[in-house]
Amino acid sequence: MLKAIQILGSSSGSVSSRFRKPQQNSGLSLISTRKSIGTINIKTDSLLLPASHYKGRFRMSSTHSQSNPDGPSSSQPSFSSVAAIQSTGNIRKVNFCQFCGGSTKHEIPDGEEKVRAICTRCGKIIYENPKMVVGCLIEHDKKILMCRRKIQPSYGLWTLPAGYMEIGESAAEGAIRETLEEANAEVEVQSPFAQLDIPLIGQTYMIFLAKLKTPHFSPGPESSECRLYELDDIPFDSLAFSSMLVTLKLYIEDIKVGRPKFHYGIINKRPGTSPSEIHAYTLDYHMQS
Amino acid sequence: MLKAIQILGSSSGSVSSRFRKPQQNSGLSLISTRKSIGTINIKTDSLLLPASHYKGRFRMSSTHSQSNPDGPSSSQPSFSSVAAIQSTGNIRKVNFCQFCGGSTKHEIPDGEEKVRAICTRCGKIIYENPKMVVGCLIEHDKKILMCRRKIQPSYGLWTLPAGYMEIGESAAEGAIRETLEEANAEVEVQSPFAQLDIPLIGQTYMIFLAKLKTPHFSPGPESSECRLYELDDIPFDSLAFSSMLVTLKLYIEDIKVGRPKFHYGIINKRPGTSPSEIHAYTLDYHMQS
Repeated sequence: MLKAIQILGSSSGSVSSRFRKPQQNSGLSLISTRKSIGTINIKTDSLLLPASHYKGRFRMSSTHSQSNPDGPSSSQPSFSSVAAIQSTGNIRKVNFCQFCGGSTKHEIPDGEEKVRAICTRCGKIIYENPKMVVGCLIEHDKKILMCRRKIQPSYGLWTLPAGYMEIGESAAEGAIRETLEEANAEVEVQSPFAQLDIPLIGQTYMIFLAKLKTPHFSPGPESSECRLYELDDIPFDSLAFSSMLVTLKLYIEDIKVGRPKFHYGIINKRPGTSPSEIHAYTLDYHMQS
Repeated sequence: MLKAIQILGSSSGSVSSRFRKPQQNSGLSLISTRKSIGTINIKTDSLLLPASHYKGRFRMSSTHSQSNPDGPSSSQPSFSSVAAIQSTGNIRKVNFCQFCGGSTKHEIPDGEEKVRAICTRCGKIIYENPKMVVGCLIEHDKKILMCRRKIQPSYGLWTLPAGYMEIGESAAEGAIRETLEEANAEVEVQSPFAQLDIPLIGQTYMIFLAKLKTPHFSPGPESSECRLYELDDIPFDSLAFSSMLVTLKLYIEDIKVGRPKFHYGIINKRPGTSPSEIHAYTLDYHMQS
């Protein structure tokens, strides 16, 4: 996605409620570890990013440290709204109905439990849902293709090609499209590799293993550099997002012991940490198939 | 989700464009079958549902046959908008900005390729993204827990507990919550089982294998009946959604040959078929880990 300007939406209170609602807390406690390989604590020793990466016109709130892998260019007019995002994960309220233009009220609809934006004119209830980010972990000659970001957030840092899944495409199609856009690389998707939920920012990453169709790649408009990295040389001290850190660590662990598996996990940010601290997450409820 | 009223959104033309855009078509062709187990053609002999299931006040468009696993109750005021959905997958245009109330224009933003709704007042570009549906395939004594729907769409038909993932929760939490709401059952999630994309209706299903914590369950407000089914007795002739049909068939195939794997696939509806024909899909780009 060349210029994605996606603002996470939530009805009032819905994001932070996960930390206080007994129902949702009990949900977490219900998750078994029978097939789990346990919680992974992300290493913190070398992954603290300089705050200078986030200075300038793009004030990064703690909910947007990686909420926008295909962040907007500075020319886009609506990115200032990102600054309105609160550290709880809540963001700008939905004030108007998208369909009739009526103003909204924020209350709990009959039979529901959460506060929602409700149109006072047509009665529509506005539901806000997590967004999927799709991308490729591209293997070539035992190396991994990575892109250096030429846009904010995380300008100058390294990532796997990834971006928001669009209406009308599948996750695999989206991952292929993003790779073409960011690395001018044509790939074949091989298998699903990881689903990583980041509840605080309302995102789910879906990463596929992929192969280059031809050994050709070059930076797309959002990348300053694309490069194949040996596993031992991956720039772990200058990665753009914790989702990529987790993905690459899981991949390397899999390769060490055999072949890649499919991983599910929840990336929870440690309370009180800055968005630039990509190490400040834990991977919880890690399960693999 | 007790009363989900979620209307799929897309900017003008974005859904149907996947069938004509060279870029996206080439994306599909790039997908390898090296690790694929091939395309599964869903059996059609016994799965045609009577149209009577869809009569009444809820006119089912072809894009909503399964677009709303937790469909609204008839008391909800905005469900009439479902009828406006076109067979291409496109739906009501976004006419107003949710944040400033300005009217929108529909055109291709600079540097992009797709038509988007753009606020004429604040300049915000409105991106529409697929929604995630999360649910549980609950194993208990070699049986599967299923719910009979007491709401539209697919009133009276059988499904696995599932519903829209909410902002602020993970997929696993959402699947546990939906199971509690629809079957009053407390479960432990064991492993991810399937991701099934349905591009035409902008949905991605994420199904987890789960176990009952206690052998207690009963119908929630959206269910008329909950029941444990032996694999040989699963009501394949009265399932609510093709996503559930595919999930159950993959599960049974896995059990026959060993243990469940993780499956990724794209459910594509056959052109020209009715939404009530849940058999009228193919599972494409099926990959497993």
